[in-house]
Amino acid sequence: MPPLPPGVTAQQFSNALREFGSAVGPEWVLSTDEDIRTYRDAFSPFWEEAEEPIPSAAVGPNTVEQVQQVVRIANKYRIPLWAVSTGRNLGYGGAAPLNSGTIVLDLKRMNRVLEVSEENAYALVEPGVSFFDLYRDIQERGLKLMLDLPQPGWGSVMGHALDRGVGQGPYEDRFGAHCGMEVVLPSGEVMRTGMGAVPGAKSWQHNPYGFGPFVDGMFAQSNFGVVTKMGFHLLPEPEALRLVTVTAPRRDDVVPFVNTVGYLKNAGICPASFGIRSPRNDTGYWSASLKFYGPLKVIDAQWEHAQEKFSAIAGVRFQEDALYRFPLSPDAIDGIPNKNVLGIPDLAAFGQGFVRDGRPHGYGHYFFAPIIPMTGEAMLEAQDVFEQAFKQLELPGRGPVGFTGWQRRSLISLISLPVEHDTGKAQKNREAFRGLMRIAGEHGWGVYRAPVVFMPDAMEVYSYNNHALRRFHETVKDALDPNGILAPGKCGIWPRRLREAREARA
Amino acid sequence: MPPLPPGVTAQQFSNALREFGSAVGPEWVLSTDEDIRTYRDAFSPFWEEAEEPIPSAAVGPNTVEQVQQVVRIANKYRIPLWAVSTGRNLGYGGAAPLNSGTIVLDLKRMNRVLEVSEENAYALVEPGVSFFDLYRDIQERGLKLMLDLPQPGWGSVMGHALDRGVGQGPYEDRFGAHCGMEVVLPSGEVMRTGMGAVPGAKSWQHNPYGFGPFVDGMFAQSNFGVVTKMGFHLLPEPEALRLVTVTAPRRDDVVPFVNTVGYLKNAGICPASFGIRSPRNDTGYWSASLKFYGPLKVIDAQWEHAQEKFSAIAGVRFQEDALYRFPLSPDAIDGIPNKNVLGIPDLAAFGQGFVRDGRPHGYGHYFFAPIIPMTGEAMLEAQDVFEQAFKQLELPGRGPVGFTGWQRRSLISLISLPVEHDTGKAQKNREAFRGLMRIAGEHGWGVYRAPVVFMPDAMEVYSYNNHALRRFHETVKDALDPNGILAPGKCGIWPRRLREAREARA
Repeated sequence: MPPLPPGVTAQQFSNALREFGSAVGPEWVLSTDEDIRTYRDAFSPFWEEAEEPIPSAAVGPNTVEQVQQVVRIANKYRIPLWAVSTGRNLGYGGAAPLNSGTIVLDLKRMNRVLEVSEENAYALVEPGVSFFDLYRDIQERGLKLMLDLPQPGWGSVMGHALDRGVGQGPYEDRFGAHCGMEVVLPSGEVMRTGMGAVPGAKSWQHNPYGFGPFVDGMFAQSNFGVVTKMGFHLLPEPEALRLVTVTAPRRDDVVPFVNTVGYLKNAGICPASFGIRSPRNDTGYWSASLKFYGPLKVIDAQWEHAQEKFSAIAGVRFQEDALYRFPLSPDAIDGIPNKNVLGIPDLAAFGQGFVRDGRPHGYGHYFFAPIIPMTGEAMLEAQDVFEQAFKQLELPGRGPVGFTGWQRRSLISLISLPVEHDTGKAQKNREAFRGLMRIAGEHGWGVYRAPVVFMPDAMEVYSYNNHALRRFHETVKDALDPNGILAPGKCGIWPRRLREAREARA
Repeated sequence: MPPLPPGVTAQQFSNALREFGSAVGPEWVLSTDEDIRTYRDAFSPFWEEAEEPIPSAAVGPNTVEQVQQVVRIANKYRIPLWAVSTGRNLGYGGAAPLNSGTIVLDLKRMNRVLEVSEENAYALVEPGVSFFDLYRDIQERGLKLMLDLPQPGWGSVMGHALDRGVGQGPYEDRFGAHCGMEVVLPSGEVMRTGMGAVPGAKSWQHNPYGFGPFVDGMFAQSNFGVVTKMGFHLLPEPEALRLVTVTAPRRDDVVPFVNTVGYLKNAGICPASFGIRSPRNDTGYWSASLKFYGPLKVIDAQWEHAQEKFSAIAGVRFQEDALYRFPLSPDAIDGIPNKNVLGIPDLAAFGQGFVRDGRPHGYGHYFFAPIIPMTGEAMLEAQDVFEQAFKQLELPGRGPVGFTGWQRRSLISLISLPVEHDTGKAQKNREAFRGLMRIAGEHGWGVYRAPVVFMPDAMEVYSYNNHALRRFHETVKDALDPNGILAPGKCGIWPRRLREAREARA
């Protein structure tokens, strides 16, 4: 039997499920053991341990009105909901909630592409729309628009942005590329943000701000509402994409090397996300992978300018990896290994995710993802600090060699820890993960997101002025969600009635 | 005698001023009639009428700690505060509060440039830092960075962004270009947002988001806190700037014409803000002013590409207005009429602001500023709708001829109404202003900001689902500011104890 929500009797739970069934259709209330299994985190750091969070059921509304009804029923019974959209979120917690007994609010049926404008280069989508869905829609209508994709493509366009994921191209800051939201609040009321608050709004997907406070950010990585519609700005299909690699030979080159890459991004000359590594092999000590999207003559000029700038570093080398012209023919697409840089979603990432040190690794991984400044000094410091931390925490390897440049002036390193099914090893890795977050915090670094089960730990690091930011969140939480029914504990934000346990520990 | 805050006795007020004096220094508590005069709105639509909001005093803290003390004293006495930074905000309400008796919290003494990084192209500033101040700081240090400026340059870098003003270059979305905030909350507590919530944060001005909900937007156009520090991303000094004008001859050209300009912005080929007009003279029916910032060879390629795209419109004409190479010599700068496109602040805008129809106009103006989609169809519709509205409201002229493209996919038209010192005329213009907002709302358009005295009217238009957004704001307001001491009524957001009047009217 799946666990019940805390403080809810079996009879109340059964009544609630019946009411959910009236709202969404009984076939969309999923509560058998088999149903529940699909909502567990396949990469859970607590796999099969007592602490592994197991949902009590899942409910799948098909419309905004049904989401509102579900939220109202949850309030009536004080049953917590955990909203998920589509995709698997592997490495960051899957579809599983933070607390056993929570009901998963599965939004995957709401998968309508509501509007796509080629003229103003935007899309308005529901939560269940995957990158595949949106890509297909755009192709079928023959619109000259490109998606800015993560790996892999099955994820939700909206969910990925709300978790502040990153894309491949010039619109890499996926949350930053959104424009306009519709949100079901914890009260069950529906709200539209930005220009969408004007009835019959004409510019909801044109200007993100509207009038007065800009509230959209409150619904990212949050438990303040369930986002049911969201607009996104898209890149007009470029003429071409050029992929290049630049290498620099010496360790000391890192400062001017990263400065040059940062300058190209900050000046809008190469605004896409980029990778930068110290591969320690014959391609050079430092290596940067850059992507230029645009009219051919413009990207030629940009690449030429980039080479001039890099040439201040003695021994720098340039390699042109590929040049793609759009539109691509189906045949051309077939032969391309890394399609997502072209805005074509695929699942090729899974060729990598299950392989560690060249050997298949069956249990998955979870991500430690600290944000550091986009400077060579910060990269060297992070490599040193985490190399020490890896030793201290008895983790294999030497820590980060690669960084990705994204979200304005920041670099991120994705460090994956293996999921273990041996309890002792699993426990050790969890402690190592918490240790990495703590050590990062001691150096002024925090993570950009975290696996669900580690979210409260991640927020512990964001503690300036006795956790002023978390206290702000929790003041807002209590005001908006007095019954604490939306995703209690998500990102460390607990409703009043569940805060006591944390405060007792502190 | 200046008016007292509502519900506060003369004795209490006098005690409060003494306490404010202990906090900030008695010389920075300003309460004589002469002091107060400088905080009136020189362009008030209610000039010298009973309804003109007159502050009771002004208090000028010099540090974050002093801001905290002032806020705590205001809570003790239930005295409302209205935060202003520096500059005049002419046309949008000046330094005057919404309600008579409010104390102006004048932050102009806090004018320190705390940090400027050339490497990561950002600045961290206090509220009183003007564009002049920041420009001077950057020049003195010889940093290769450019400011993205409004007109005129005396305004606060922070205040302008918090009001969601617009700049001239690729970082035109000034609020969007910010990264990291420090905020004094209505409780008097200080909070840092984004990565700044990590003690000793290393990437506060590098990544805007941090972990968990992204709260910064809540402090723009808002009364939820007093922002005391704010980071901004800057453009690395470009090699060159090319100014061009493109014209198209026929009214029907507007759809492809605006589409082309929009494509150039959305694709990052010409991301700066732009102007588009129907000048009805021999330069063509439609005219667009574009700005290309970057390496010379890149902007040459961008401009060439732009011309190819525009050439699909028969009869289109191109004019190269100026080409500037950086760095500019002081002599070169002297001779340039419109310096702010070059990132050099000036006050030249005031040559225009006081002139109407070629004649000097002494009393000023206030701005009606609706947001519409960036399409030719929307421009034509707005021109028609507002031409009708002008007739109906008996306003002189024919309504908007010019639009500015900014903040992603939106066009804005700045329509100025004259301030009148004759009560009858003033009343008529105020009614016309409210009429324009109402008519805009009927067509699905809202304003991006409004003169302070019209803020509650502006928010009336953002009424989707029985004012769900405003109710959200007011729920948050009551939770954060239970005494309602920060800027009551700003953007139509009233604390609980002052909402009854509005609700009685409705």
